[in-house]
Amino acid sequence: MKHILIIGTGKSTSYLIDYLYREAGEGGIGITLGDRDKTQLELLKAQYPGIGTVRLDISRGDLLEKNIRPADLVISMLPAALHIEIAKTCLVLGKHLVTASYVSPAMQQLDREVRDKGLVFMNEIGLDPGIDHMSAMQVIDRIREQGGRMLLFESFCGGLVAPESDTNLWNYKFTWNPRNVVLAGQGGAAKFIQEGAYKYIPYHKLFRRTEFLDVEGYGKFEAYANRDSLKYREAYGLQDVLTLYRGTMRKVGFSRAWNIFVQLGMTDDSYVMEGSENMSFRDFINAFLPFSPTDSVELKLRYYLKIDQDDIMWAKLEELGLFDHRRKVGLKNASPARILQKILEESWSLEEHDRDMIVMYHKFGYELAGERYQTDASMVVTGQDRTYTAMAKTVGLPVGMAALYILRGKISAPGVRIPIDKEVYAPILAALEAQGIRFTETEHPYTGYNPNYVAG
Amino acid sequence: MKHILIIGTGKSTSYLIDYLYREAGEGGIGITLGDRDKTQLELLKAQYPGIGTVRLDISRGDLLEKNIRPADLVISMLPAALHIEIAKTCLVLGKHLVTASYVSPAMQQLDREVRDKGLVFMNEIGLDPGIDHMSAMQVIDRIREQGGRMLLFESFCGGLVAPESDTNLWNYKFTWNPRNVVLAGQGGAAKFIQEGAYKYIPYHKLFRRTEFLDVEGYGKFEAYANRDSLKYREAYGLQDVLTLYRGTMRKVGFSRAWNIFVQLGMTDDSYVMEGSENMSFRDFINAFLPFSPTDSVELKLRYYLKIDQDDIMWAKLEELGLFDHRRKVGLKNASPARILQKILEESWSLEEHDRDMIVMYHKFGYELAGERYQTDASMVVTGQDRTYTAMAKTVGLPVGMAALYILRGKISAPGVRIPIDKEVYAPILAALEAQGIRFTETEHPYTGYNPNYVAG
Repeated sequence: MKHILIIGTGKSTSYLIDYLYREAGEGGIGITLGDRDKTQLELLKAQYPGIGTVRLDISRGDLLEKNIRPADLVISMLPAALHIEIAKTCLVLGKHLVTASYVSPAMQQLDREVRDKGLVFMNEIGLDPGIDHMSAMQVIDRIREQGGRMLLFESFCGGLVAPESDTNLWNYKFTWNPRNVVLAGQGGAAKFIQEGAYKYIPYHKLFRRTEFLDVEGYGKFEAYANRDSLKYREAYGLQDVLTLYRGTMRKVGFSRAWNIFVQLGMTDDSYVMEGSENMSFRDFINAFLPFSPTDSVELKLRYYLKIDQDDIMWAKLEELGLFDHRRKVGLKNASPARILQKILEESWSLEEHDRDMIVMYHKFGYELAGERYQTDASMVVTGQDRTYTAMAKTVGLPVGMAALYILRGKISAPGVRIPIDKEVYAPILAALEAQGIRFTETEHPYTGYNPNYVAG
Repeated sequence: MKHILIIGTGKSTSYLIDYLYREAGEGGIGITLGDRDKTQLELLKAQYPGIGTVRLDISRGDLLEKNIRPADLVISMLPAALHIEIAKTCLVLGKHLVTASYVSPAMQQLDREVRDKGLVFMNEIGLDPGIDHMSAMQVIDRIREQGGRMLLFESFCGGLVAPESDTNLWNYKFTWNPRNVVLAGQGGAAKFIQEGAYKYIPYHKLFRRTEFLDVEGYGKFEAYANRDSLKYREAYGLQDVLTLYRGTMRKVGFSRAWNIFVQLGMTDDSYVMEGSENMSFRDFINAFLPFSPTDSVELKLRYYLKIDQDDIMWAKLEELGLFDHRRKVGLKNASPARILQKILEESWSLEEHDRDMIVMYHKFGYELAGERYQTDASMVVTGQDRTYTAMAKTVGLPVGMAALYILRGKISAPGVRIPIDKEVYAPILAALEAQGIRFTETEHPYTGYNPNYVAG
């Protein structure tokens, strides 16, 4: 009997545990859940009879080793920075590892030793990164097998709210770490290639350089560029493509309104605001506006950012209570970003029965036998409620599937890996489809960014 | 006979050496110039007969000690980061020290030991910081002596080009380190107080939140906020003032045009641009604009930043050759900021006979016997040519004067100091006035930022 240890049982693991519990029951696989939260473990034990649980403080190396020893494979669902200690212990004890996080340089350094020991350390096998890699490489490999030459690859993903739960003017609720949403796009210019030319967008312009996308049956979306669209250029074998772009999706109009926060300086996390604790929401906004003895915060803001009377953006700000002088920030020594996060959390948190929605959209442009083509592939997944979210489903299922397939020897090439090989993506995408996670492909005339290419 | 060692004889030291050479001849003081550049030392030896020179590599601790030992006082005109080694050696050997640089935390830590040894380590005694401290504290102390209570302090300074040498549309040339000009304002939001309210301006808005200033006889200037206007609040004893603001001056229109570079992302020094070496100026600007197969870089830029046909800003860009596809950047692995610096240096360097101009402007608002007042104090200094600049004069003379007065015991309170005490500013401001560096005071109705205060 094989054994899986899952470390970290937070809110993103609902589907993962469900799935493995079901599969393991049939396949003679034992599961142990490790967490530092005792109450959480007791709840899970009640929900999944027969499952093993263990309190685990990963800062205690001895405990980590003791608990990893009986397992054949470890799944780490902890924050990315905590994986490396687990990885090192897995390496020493000869255990496979699965995570949904980006491969850190420290993780990558283990590659040689992981290979030598014949282990699989599969990373980036959640949603984004994860399903994006697999679904993109499946199409890219197919185009190449047919003799096609890739010209363009664009990939978009967004964690959104389902239409039936979409109750605010921003068409957005937090379905993931709110802090990451507030800080999104910071830390350097966004870089990508369009028609062979490198392009750079500074943070303060990012939310005004969006592209629009239609997703059949779901309407119009927009996307802003990710920091580094070129990250997987080599991994995907796209060194020669003319256009390479990755973006984050929102419903149309979100980014233009978000840009107000960026322009004001409200997303800055680098300094602490004086007197943040007793500041009202109105004081907060006023701190970014010039002083006036006579004019209102409202008019100063409209004038400063040239927001017209008939611009719906204004109602988005009002909806958040930003002009309220009675609502207090109540956070000591807080940065603008931290304060903004709190204000947004009061408006954008999922209700118990709210459903989230994941949208992923790829564009593949290629040349085949002298002709240019474009294939788009899109996926939409809707959650059930605040616990069984589409986010938890699309992150957790690929992780669980990878774990099973590694244990069963279906995925076996050793090393520190990401899911870009057929050995990995073929069985997992097939299994995801059985769970209702599937891509729809559509054909389009290839234009790239250059209408001169339009046929006829 | 007392001895001064000047370490660093770069372009900002022309007036300093001139001044000390003249004064020392009369006062029985010996001067030695230390530099790592042999040719420079030979030139200086020819220009100043009888002066001592020594080649000095300050990374060689033994050489440093050997050369500081015969001196009574050391002046360091090296870049700020290099002062600390010199300071430590001065401390060990019991020598006074003068620099024109900001007090670093490492320098401040020496304070106790410097005091214990009865030494004076005078810092921030150039122009800005330097003359700003002295001229401000002279007025503030006077207001207080008269029983006044400070309400407002604003201080502005700019290194500009004199009207007779003002030959470009930007009304600007580099009179100091061009790199600092390109990076000015970066690294965090500008923070200040207006009428008792803390205000924050993010970098990408900084150059559109300028204030205008009239300097009699010199026309209109504008100023953008410095990073931390509150830095000297405690040192100046201004904890209770309603308004505290420090800014950098430019001729009107500079900042609005500079904002184009900021908006495009051209002042970013955090990443390297692909293919920077063979990039034309036109390619450089195009890297920050969306791709278009049909539209020109010019129209894309006008549209992106909404620059009207009749806006003179456009001519400022043309003047720099920014749209030229023949002029090459020619810098390997360069950041946008580095490339922009190069382009600007080709247009904004001082010619041999160009004169620079320093402008400093303070506003002091105060209450006295129930009435509110405002006194403004301004200083304009014009250089002679590219070597004898107003910048070198206003930085070098206070440094030289402080050195003399320390040796003569006129400035004697020991410690790591900045020139905010009467013991320091009174004799130095008087001596500067004798050299033509003087402030003109004017009286104004006090309004602060609040016109409700206007009398009658």
